[in-house]
Amino acid sequence: MIKGDWGSTHLRLLRIRRGEQDRLTGPGIARLTSSPAETLAQVLSPWAESLSEGVLLCGMAGSQSSLHPTPYIACPADVGAWSRGLSSVPSSEYPTWIAAGLSCQNFADQPDVMRGEEAQIFGALELDPSLASGTHCLVLPGTHSKWAIVRDAEIIRFQTFLTGELFANLTTRSSLLIDREENAGDGQDGFTCGLGEGGTNPLASLFSVRTAQLVGDRSREWARGYLSGILLAAEMAEAVRLTGLVDEITLIGDEDLVTLYQAAAAQAGIRSRAMDGQACVMAGLDRLAGFIERIPA
Amino acid sequence: MIKGDWGSTHLRLLRIRRGEQDRLTGPGIARLTSSPAETLAQVLSPWAESLSEGVLLCGMAGSQSSLHPTPYIACPADVGAWSRGLSSVPSSEYPTWIAAGLSCQNFADQPDVMRGEEAQIFGALELDPSLASGTHCLVLPGTHSKWAIVRDAEIIRFQTFLTGELFANLTTRSSLLIDREENAGDGQDGFTCGLGEGGTNPLASLFSVRTAQLVGDRSREWARGYLSGILLAAEMAEAVRLTGLVDEITLIGDEDLVTLYQAAAAQAGIRSRAMDGQACVMAGLDRLAGFIERIPA
Repeated sequence: MIKGDWGSTHLRLLRIRRGEQDRLTGPGIARLTSSPAETLAQVLSPWAESLSEGVLLCGMAGSQSSLHPTPYIACPADVGAWSRGLSSVPSSEYPTWIAAGLSCQNFADQPDVMRGEEAQIFGALELDPSLASGTHCLVLPGTHSKWAIVRDAEIIRFQTFLTGELFANLTTRSSLLIDREENAGDGQDGFTCGLGEGGTNPLASLFSVRTAQLVGDRSREWARGYLSGILLAAEMAEAVRLTGLVDEITLIGDEDLVTLYQAAAAQAGIRSRAMDGQACVMAGLDRLAGFIERIPA
Repeated sequence: MIKGDWGSTHLRLLRIRRGEQDRLTGPGIARLTSSPAETLAQVLSPWAESLSEGVLLCGMAGSQSSLHPTPYIACPADVGAWSRGLSSVPSSEYPTWIAAGLSCQNFADQPDVMRGEEAQIFGALELDPSLASGTHCLVLPGTHSKWAIVRDAEIIRFQTFLTGELFANLTTRSSLLIDREENAGDGQDGFTCGLGEGGTNPLASLFSVRTAQLVGDRSREWARGYLSGILLAAEMAEAVRLTGLVDEITLIGDEDLVTLYQAAAAQAGIRSRAMDGQACVMAGLDRLAGFIERIPA
């Protein structure tokens, strides 16, 4: 079976043949230039001979305007409840399954949703059985960063932060980053200074990204790191306030982003450990595929 | 003399002839399609016969990449200190004066700047002499909203918030507003709900703008108001934390925006009064023009 994660920014597909992993990548749901079905067919075309084994996708593939609308499963939810949300795409020429996302009433008492991160979380519980009992806080950085509380292998509740989207938005389309070639300072130093703001007054701190270059002799690269630090510190501060005291978090994601979050956690006095996001999502989809194989055709 | 305010989003020019006010408008500095000098010449072309009287501009006309770089005057600054920052444009065919902006170390201990708002503040002190003695907090909503402390007619210190730019950015280029025609709720109700969030966890609240439409049956119009309420409540909360206890503010700006800020202030327990932004900026420029007339040609 071909397994894949279709997020906002990337489509990542994996198959295992004779013990070897093959990978394909394509555009995220927010970056499509053709319909989701056409895009998927095109990205999958080098694997035509494997399609009859079926395709299992998590993430935005199940959103309202994507491949096939797949309702959310309400938290608390364990892997069994998640598997009962599996949906098959009726019009597909080969077996295509889409994993459900999860919904909850979050710590701010608002409706909240995830699509794809639940596969990473259930995968993490497979890869590290110590996470499958007791209470743990799992953090999944990304476009829409998620903080999830897992208790005895159930996802109890989670909270989304707009951090990643806001960073992308403010670095590409705002007045905050300006070119001042004569200015100095590297991104790492800026990031450390941004974390040092402590995340308490983000709307005020954000404008200082601009003034740091305009009157403070800081480079664009420094300011970009500073912006990143301000936003990550703000996410940490809000997450601690909302979820209650957090002593230790398990970070799941790409190495570069997880490294930044580990620094932000340390600054906020939170211990952290890291797991690879790709390995987790594939372990989660493997577990889900086990349920499909038990469904009669 | 022709007087004008050149902000990020608008150029507004005014002249008085035989007791009658004439107005011209043009694009803001962030929306230029030709050079600042060319744009100004084109917008001023209907008033060719008045140019010999001179043109006095405040705002972004004095920024680094605009008409003529005009250094900031450091706070604390009264109207006399501001007038000493006046700069004339050397290459202009007619007398052109540019008002200095102000700089300070703000409440978050960061460098901060304003260009144009100082004209509104000094104008407000002219229009309402009760503001010219004692300590007052003046708030100027806009793309980069400013909270300024004025003591005995001196601008002591101020703080910029990215609120307006963030709102424009998130309403036009983010995942937050989606079209769900079947959903319900009007913008005013959304705004009130956004204010009710209290501004304590903006990164978390922002994502709920999306989920309110996705799973909460709220309309795009409701969500737009909700986003506005979340950001304004966050600005109020940060401003109160940063500037210390604020009992009463004087809001200076366009009526629509000031009305929203008055509701946000009331929700935060702050009394407010309003002054018209256009009247204030022109009063400030009138006062500044008085200094020019005393400079020998």
